[in-house]
Amino acid sequence: MSDKVAVLVAGSWGTAIASVLAENQLDVTLWSRNEQQVAEINNEHRNHRFLGDIELSPRIRATTSMEEALHETRAVFVVAPSASMREVALQMRPFLRQETILVHATKGFEATTLRRMSTVLAEELPQYDPYSIVVLSGPSHAEEVIKQCPTTVVVASENTEAAEAAQDLLINSYFRVYTNPDVIGVEVGGALKNIIALGAGLTDGLGYGDNAKAALITRGLAEISRLGTAMGGNPLTFAGLAGIGDLVVTCTSKHSRNWRAGYTLAQGEPLETVLQQMGMVVEGVKTTQAAYRLSREYGITMPIADELYAVLFEGKSAIAAAQDLMGRGRTHEIEEVAKPVQTKWFG
Amino acid sequence: MSDKVAVLVAGSWGTAIASVLAENQLDVTLWSRNEQQVAEINNEHRNHRFLGDIELSPRIRATTSMEEALHETRAVFVVAPSASMREVALQMRPFLRQETILVHATKGFEATTLRRMSTVLAEELPQYDPYSIVVLSGPSHAEEVIKQCPTTVVVASENTEAAEAAQDLLINSYFRVYTNPDVIGVEVGGALKNIIALGAGLTDGLGYGDNAKAALITRGLAEISRLGTAMGGNPLTFAGLAGIGDLVVTCTSKHSRNWRAGYTLAQGEPLETVLQQMGMVVEGVKTTQAAYRLSREYGITMPIADELYAVLFEGKSAIAAAQDLMGRGRTHEIEEVAKPVQTKWFG
Repeated sequence: MSDKVAVLVAGSWGTAIASVLAENQLDVTLWSRNEQQVAEINNEHRNHRFLGDIELSPRIRATTSMEEALHETRAVFVVAPSASMREVALQMRPFLRQETILVHATKGFEATTLRRMSTVLAEELPQYDPYSIVVLSGPSHAEEVIKQCPTTVVVASENTEAAEAAQDLLINSYFRVYTNPDVIGVEVGGALKNIIALGAGLTDGLGYGDNAKAALITRGLAEISRLGTAMGGNPLTFAGLAGIGDLVVTCTSKHSRNWRAGYTLAQGEPLETVLQQMGMVVEGVKTTQAAYRLSREYGITMPIADELYAVLFEGKSAIAAAQDLMGRGRTHEIEEVAKPVQTKWFG
Repeated sequence: MSDKVAVLVAGSWGTAIASVLAENQLDVTLWSRNEQQVAEINNEHRNHRFLGDIELSPRIRATTSMEEALHETRAVFVVAPSASMREVALQMRPFLRQETILVHATKGFEATTLRRMSTVLAEELPQYDPYSIVVLSGPSHAEEVIKQCPTTVVVASENTEAAEAAQDLLINSYFRVYTNPDVIGVEVGGALKNIIALGAGLTDGLGYGDNAKAALITRGLAEISRLGTAMGGNPLTFAGLAGIGDLVVTCTSKHSRNWRAGYTLAQGEPLETVLQQMGMVVEGVKTTQAAYRLSREYGITMPIADELYAVLFEGKSAIAAAQDLMGRGRTHEIEEVAKPVQTKWFG
């Protein structure tokens, strides 16, 4: 079999996955639309905009040609922002063969349709068996993966063989890969955690401390599990790496751009300014809109997502949102975790 | 009813609980064996050894007399180290009335008997209805509670009225209190998280990063849930504040003395030196011994606790333990979460 693999879009996470594959002695073609970035990767072995001065493996070759990237490739890893997933899939369509392992590692929903990423891929790649699409998720800051810090992730597919093939390509001494058949749970967990990370940045920005953030993470996980289970995910997935694991890493680490966006919002900056300052996609902002709509579609109460929606899009102050989440009434804990009928985060 | 409440033992958490009760306009008697500490609290309104220069409410009066502390008190909050719980209970025996609400907030097992704290209290206080004992737990660093940072906790009792009475005494605008009927789950979750916090300190001390710590927390929660459920706890409790919430705050905050002990151990210091340097009780060390024995008694595999036991008591190096936890084989995620038959943390 060919030792060639492709990674689409050279953001920080795509480049980190490319580095794992290069470390595993595979020949990696990294696709990007940006010619300057392609030249930089090929000539200087750097991806400065996303990863500063970190040196990349010479096994990673960049190209702007989708045909070249997908030509006789053993696997393709799609790591596009959720907003451009459909367009990237369309560009892949003429060149993707059914024998190629198709993995995506994008966390988010399509903003207009609220589709999961594997559904977008399936819609735009009609020649490809949708049952074999693999999703990669878990607690994995790109910066740490590039530095070969120990990391564990999940690859999920309804087709066990496809998941195991992806596992074989990725696994090594610092990158542990588990398989899981629950595509829906892994995709929904990965998308929704970005909302809670925004909230964690907000509470940190308000100076609330670790106790408050732990409460937010706990109640946030309950909220994610409720919606994810209603959408067809396995409740156990949310207790695993793509659920609580990813939630913890995103909420407690300053690498997270969602956390940073929340932190800046808490200083009173308007959303538009915050997004301009970041200069990167903040998936949590769009995901908050998606969760707002999905929670209503599925009849699930999501107090944290609702309060963040109000802060992001309705001009509510971060302090007022936090106070409303603190609520007032006395409550039992387990009923709240179990029943999808609460009105407030803490209350 | 009397507005007098007692808190036994003036450590950092006991003093923080005393501060919440004082804020709620209750007259708090804080019992300590240490005359110098009692004088400092009464004369300077400080508890310097545990809380530095933080000023305490003048509503908190300290005493060395157990009789005075328990005299006509509406409630007593026992916050002794697990190693002295039985002795404190014995001292309480002559003075505790059945009408008094009895709450404990101690996280750990009795080292010799492996008893939970509510069992120790019940054994030494035969005149008191064991069904009414309340346990307080959750993500709550004392330092933040004293500073009135937003905090959420759980009070659990088989007797709902007792739990609600404790909730009424404690709840205020920054201290949210949930009730839960699951005493076993809340006690086991609170005790076992200290083991994982030691492990988190170790991985941080080895420079492993946030991805590895998130994996440790995720696998640690699975381990806690397995043993806790086997001991009779409700699985939902481990997904709540006394489970994942407390685990997250203890593993990700530098306030935690268990985390600090693990961090220092990773530098290669022997356990004895680490404990001497800390100068405070490190519950996680004794709890690792307890978990080692309990996991065998209940037939539950606990790879993280086992590796920590080897580091603490068998001279295994932190790096070797981490490498063994990284394992090698390929695995499915959900099977591991669901089945109590795994041999390695990551593997």
